[in-house]
Amino acid sequence: MTSPLSGSELSPQAGGRLDVIGLGPGDAALVTPATSAVVADAEIFLGYGPYLDRLTLAPGQRCEASDNREELDRAKAALRLAAEGRRVAVVSGGDPGVFAMAAAVCEAVEAGPAAWRQIEIAVHPGITAALAVAARAGAPLGHDFCVISLSDNLKPWALVEARLRAAAEAGFAMALYNPISRARPWQLGAAFEALGSVLPADVPVIFGRALSRPGERLSVSRIAEATSAAEAFGADMATLVIVGSRETRVIDRPGRPPLVYSPRSAATVAEAAS
Amino acid sequence: MTSPLSGSELSPQAGGRLDVIGLGPGDAALVTPATSAVVADAEIFLGYGPYLDRLTLAPGQRCEASDNREELDRAKAALRLAAEGRRVAVVSGGDPGVFAMAAAVCEAVEAGPAAWRQIEIAVHPGITAALAVAARAGAPLGHDFCVISLSDNLKPWALVEARLRAAAEAGFAMALYNPISRARPWQLGAAFEALGSVLPADVPVIFGRALSRPGERLSVSRIAEATSAAEAFGADMATLVIVGSRETRVIDRPGRPPLVYSPRSAATVAEAAS
Repeated sequence: MTSPLSGSELSPQAGGRLDVIGLGPGDAALVTPATSAVVADAEIFLGYGPYLDRLTLAPGQRCEASDNREELDRAKAALRLAAEGRRVAVVSGGDPGVFAMAAAVCEAVEAGPAAWRQIEIAVHPGITAALAVAARAGAPLGHDFCVISLSDNLKPWALVEARLRAAAEAGFAMALYNPISRARPWQLGAAFEALGSVLPADVPVIFGRALSRPGERLSVSRIAEATSAAEAFGADMATLVIVGSRETRVIDRPGRPPLVYSPRSAATVAEAAS
Repeated sequence: MTSPLSGSELSPQAGGRLDVIGLGPGDAALVTPATSAVVADAEIFLGYGPYLDRLTLAPGQRCEASDNREELDRAKAALRLAAEGRRVAVVSGGDPGVFAMAAAVCEAVEAGPAAWRQIEIAVHPGITAALAVAARAGAPLGHDFCVISLSDNLKPWALVEARLRAAAEAGFAMALYNPISRARPWQLGAAFEALGSVLPADVPVIFGRALSRPGERLSVSRIAEATSAAEAFGADMATLVIVGSRETRVIDRPGRPPLVYSPRSAATVAEAAS
């Protein structure tokens, strides 16, 4: 045989598998037992360093950290190892299917050698930041909502802004991921400006950071003051922003943080027509 | 004192608290340790019977089941018990903040006696059906997405349809909760028709039911055949439907179910302008 393909490119070695997991917002009490079982069983863990740092590994298990921008290369490396018969776990924070590694693994499978389609792949759901922040605040995503990444690294900013406006006009609450970074300093302000042109000034805005971890912070503001509130909060890539709908309400409580919630009912279609 | 208010309406009894939890899609391996800790500690559990049936209780713990339509009354009963000093857990499936009890509890707090604002309330995030089904299918919610309830019990159908169209036009994938029931037999078909008028015929549609439970089923179809596929699947209230965006892809695999994913990148704004 003089095939130019190596053995593992034709069909995967027995025993190999790839689990895609998410460690939730940070607290081990928010990692599902299913995900903990993968952590106990896998041989090699690939992921962004800060997520891998959360793992407690046994002898014989090892980590391969890579930069946050190298998702596709990491996915390919993981598939290569699984095709060679290794038990591999790809590690995200939050839920691996929400702006995280599950999509990168699928992209790599589609573009990769045929053997990769025969690898046993399992994606395990986790607690994504939107739901962790929402829970801490009350129930701001208690009715229809959208989940949007503000990063324009992989999509044009005009598309981000079009989606923000469409979501606000149609009456969705929304959770905003990747709101701001050193390389993308103005996008969050532009997002609030776009939303402020559609929504009433008093629509609640929630900033959450390091939920369930030491240094957890949560702050409630209004869309009209959201840009200065983001600055005061110190919003960064690890911050999750929730913007309410016209119906989202804030309940003030003596000696406790406010409860923010979106009612289960919506009375009129007016909001969708504006 | 001849106050018309009972003691617990003026200020809550010490020791009372209300935890709002979600049991995920069904498998105990998808219940977070934080939620299991609440189950171990609470005295009284209120919820829809089938969710309460999943709990294993110790002596001294008790359940109060109520019908799925009685969410607000259940929330009030839970707050009343917490104000009397009891440790109460309100139990949802999935995540309690996604079309579940957290919003009902907040509504009851806002409308209830002032003492209820002093009750210690904690909402604990869980694995919601959208993320459980998405994980099993690959990563269909791997890019911007919406979460929409098709129930028109608490909002007009015209609003549901306006949101579906807005989401599809803006390029969101979407997860549809409460798709169909005996009392709402035509809404899912109407939703597919509305979406089909906006989206290309081959946009993937996923039906998921009883994920992680015995009898789990998952099926992948296309928007053009979604109504007949829903019938063949036997879609019901316990079914979660995911509709992809124009960019969502299906990877066929020999001997394995297809992987469905939405790429992390979006190249153009054309989809948002259509």
